[in-house]
Amino acid sequence: MPDRSSHRALPAHTHPEDVPVETALAALADPVRLQLVRELAAAADWSHSCGSFQVPVGKAALSHHFTVLRAAGLVEQRDRGPKRLNRLRREEFDTRFPGLLGLVLREEG
Amino acid sequence: MPDRSSHRALPAHTHPEDVPVETALAALADPVRLQLVRELAAAADWSHSCGSFQVPVGKAALSHHFTVLRAAGLVEQRDRGPKRLNRLRREEFDTRFPGLLGLVLREEG
Repeated sequence: MPDRSSHRALPAHTHPEDVPVETALAALADPVRLQLVRELAAAADWSHSCGSFQVPVGKAALSHHFTVLRAAGLVEQRDRGPKRLNRLRREEFDTRFPGLLGLVLREEG
Repeated sequence: MPDRSSHRALPAHTHPEDVPVETALAALADPVRLQLVRELAAAADWSHSCGSFQVPVGKAALSHHFTVLRAAGLVEQRDRGPKRLNRLRREEFDTRFPGLLGLVLREEG
């Protein structure tokens, strides 16, 4: 049976080890992406599909924000049926940039 | 005697306490500003005038970068005669965003 996922091939991921510090900072320097990261941090891994976040942006903008988060090593995605599920790469990101995620998660939105 | 400084009135500064985390991250998410911050971190306070940094940008761009750094609570400026001198607000910024400066200073340029 072909994959009936509504997404095309799962997009490329970048491991935090390969992320320059400027890229990590720029990814987090945006209120929508900070909100996505905070919601992911507050939920269990793989419990959030891309459509389930409380952010005031459309689908195309959301897709762009996830591209930036993947490229910064912040988010891992996996398709399950029609849903694309998300996980914050907290441990790997913390190993690469100690304290950075904690800093933005401590702040209020 | 009037002030013969080549600068106009010293521009406004923002204290790190009043800086949102997005603003701090965006200020540091730029290779030229990171280089300015690294050079300031490596030098004594007030030893660097605005024209003394090793960055490949013109005067107008440099002025913009310093505006961003002041607004993020990263840099304090003071005029001495014709020179505008700079200081990294390391302690105040560290108090507001613990570990963030250390993170970017550890990274290679």
